[in-house]
Amino acid sequence: MTLTIGLIGLGAMGSGMAQSLRRAGHSPHVFDVRPGAAEAFVRDGGHACATLADLGARCDVVVSVVVNAAQTESVLFGAGGDGDGSLAAAMQPGSVFVMCSTVDPNVSMAFESRLAKKDILYIDAPISGGAAKAASGEMTMMTAARPEAYAKAGAVLDAMAAKVYRLGDRAGAGSKVKVINQLLAGVHIAAAAEAMALGLREGVDPAALYEVITHSAGNSWMFENRMAHVLAADYTPLSAVDIFVKDLGIVLDMARATKFPLPLSSTAHQMFMQASTAGFAKEDDSAVIKIFPGIELPKKA
Amino acid sequence: MTLTIGLIGLGAMGSGMAQSLRRAGHSPHVFDVRPGAAEAFVRDGGHACATLADLGARCDVVVSVVVNAAQTESVLFGAGGDGDGSLAAAMQPGSVFVMCSTVDPNVSMAFESRLAKKDILYIDAPISGGAAKAASGEMTMMTAARPEAYAKAGAVLDAMAAKVYRLGDRAGAGSKVKVINQLLAGVHIAAAAEAMALGLREGVDPAALYEVITHSAGNSWMFENRMAHVLAADYTPLSAVDIFVKDLGIVLDMARATKFPLPLSSTAHQMFMQASTAGFAKEDDSAVIKIFPGIELPKKA
Repeated sequence: MTLTIGLIGLGAMGSGMAQSLRRAGHSPHVFDVRPGAAEAFVRDGGHACATLADLGARCDVVVSVVVNAAQTESVLFGAGGDGDGSLAAAMQPGSVFVMCSTVDPNVSMAFESRLAKKDILYIDAPISGGAAKAASGEMTMMTAARPEAYAKAGAVLDAMAAKVYRLGDRAGAGSKVKVINQLLAGVHIAAAAEAMALGLREGVDPAALYEVITHSAGNSWMFENRMAHVLAADYTPLSAVDIFVKDLGIVLDMARATKFPLPLSSTAHQMFMQASTAGFAKEDDSAVIKIFPGIELPKKA
Repeated sequence: MTLTIGLIGLGAMGSGMAQSLRRAGHSPHVFDVRPGAAEAFVRDGGHACATLADLGARCDVVVSVVVNAAQTESVLFGAGGDGDGSLAAAMQPGSVFVMCSTVDPNVSMAFESRLAKKDILYIDAPISGGAAKAASGEMTMMTAARPEAYAKAGAVLDAMAAKVYRLGDRAGAGSKVKVINQLLAGVHIAAAAEAMALGLREGVDPAALYEVITHSAGNSWMFENRMAHVLAADYTPLSAVDIFVKDLGIVLDMARATKFPLPLSSTAHQMFMQASTAGFAKEDDSAVIKIFPGIELPKKA
């Protein structure tokens, strides 16, 4: 049985994932709120849907790759709830909704419950790896779902990602692990900025500092990746400061629900908010280094 | 010309470095304050010195591998200054003192100045890599020194370390880079603990969390290394909580001298102090996770 697959949100990640589906032999139905985006995509194969209801009615598995929880809510249930025009109202019983956004795990668990009432299956499936890996099918998915959801849509996940972690038998653990990854990513970017800023303040050669740290126990994936942007004075946003204002906000929201203290995450969140409001919201997240006073950052060669 | 080498401090790092010197064909003169330590070492070659003055008078290059700045001060200048019995009084003009401890860079620069008045050369040379790499000659040195000091003792450094970074032409940059590495190492250990603690609070399987994070952008050298101790419930101190109370203290002292703000370092320092005073001072630094309330840590299998 060949499944009909839908994909909502043809942004940097979603368009790459739709390409991976096409490469795997699917002819995906796609939808994007931006006029013309779906039509442009289907020039190389696939079907553009004019409405979410149209997509929902046609597909066995719907993959949602929108920005956040609010957009996911809007996609599923529309501005006016789950009335006739919404995706959730249009999807068939037994079909599967795959939620790929980074959201509060409690929100993801609530989506699963609400869809279960309509006999729609759900996979909690945040993604990681960036646009290039999405397009090549090499990204990572952190998933959790009921066994019957995996049984129906597991192969679709494997078509989009090199590594599909299965972390639980109902929604929640996928989003939890993704949120904890974002905790570390955000703290590490802010720590990398703090370390590089101190080096500049102390007159250490930044390239030499980068060389030593990336070969020492102080290294992190984020130090190595983001401080290269600072050395090159290139703040083109691959991922923007405001993404970590959002994601560390989700980290803190999740922990607040169980009154759990997160001293480093809350400090890093303040640093990204300071950077955002100081004018660097749309710059690369490494621009958090610009909050440090009394230093001269490397300039473009 | 074969140099006569001395080494002071036969602890975990120093004894390995003395072995590396022996392997390189040297017959090192060694000293340790602990009775019998030097005698035990020289059973396989080398010379035990009864006093620092004896060692200083005999050696062209003296490598100091003591715990901190206070011990280095005591080694060099004795309790009573630089009088007749001290190492600095005994060392010959033109000989070289190699300072391998993690200290405030300003302290290291002051050692260089004070020794220069006696025509003793100085290498700012903090080390990194742990005891096993010290013994195999594979550790890293972060060094800075005047060219004449490198000219005389450069080969001695290479005999002890796989990688000798030369970061400046006078003392300071070696210690600065080492201190910044400790900033990142300390923040990353505390962040790893915070992330793992949140996962436990949220009911995530800690082994699965470890597996995903170590293959994701949230990874750090310290997360991968130290959270393995937490999963194994093994808090045997490879490096103790109190080492980071000390080292993050040096980070903050250095930055305070130029009034430079370090929000994450100061937060992490508070976390290690909380762990220390709560009773975990001598446990592995990963025991900083024990400050988090309301979680059950993995137990020994």
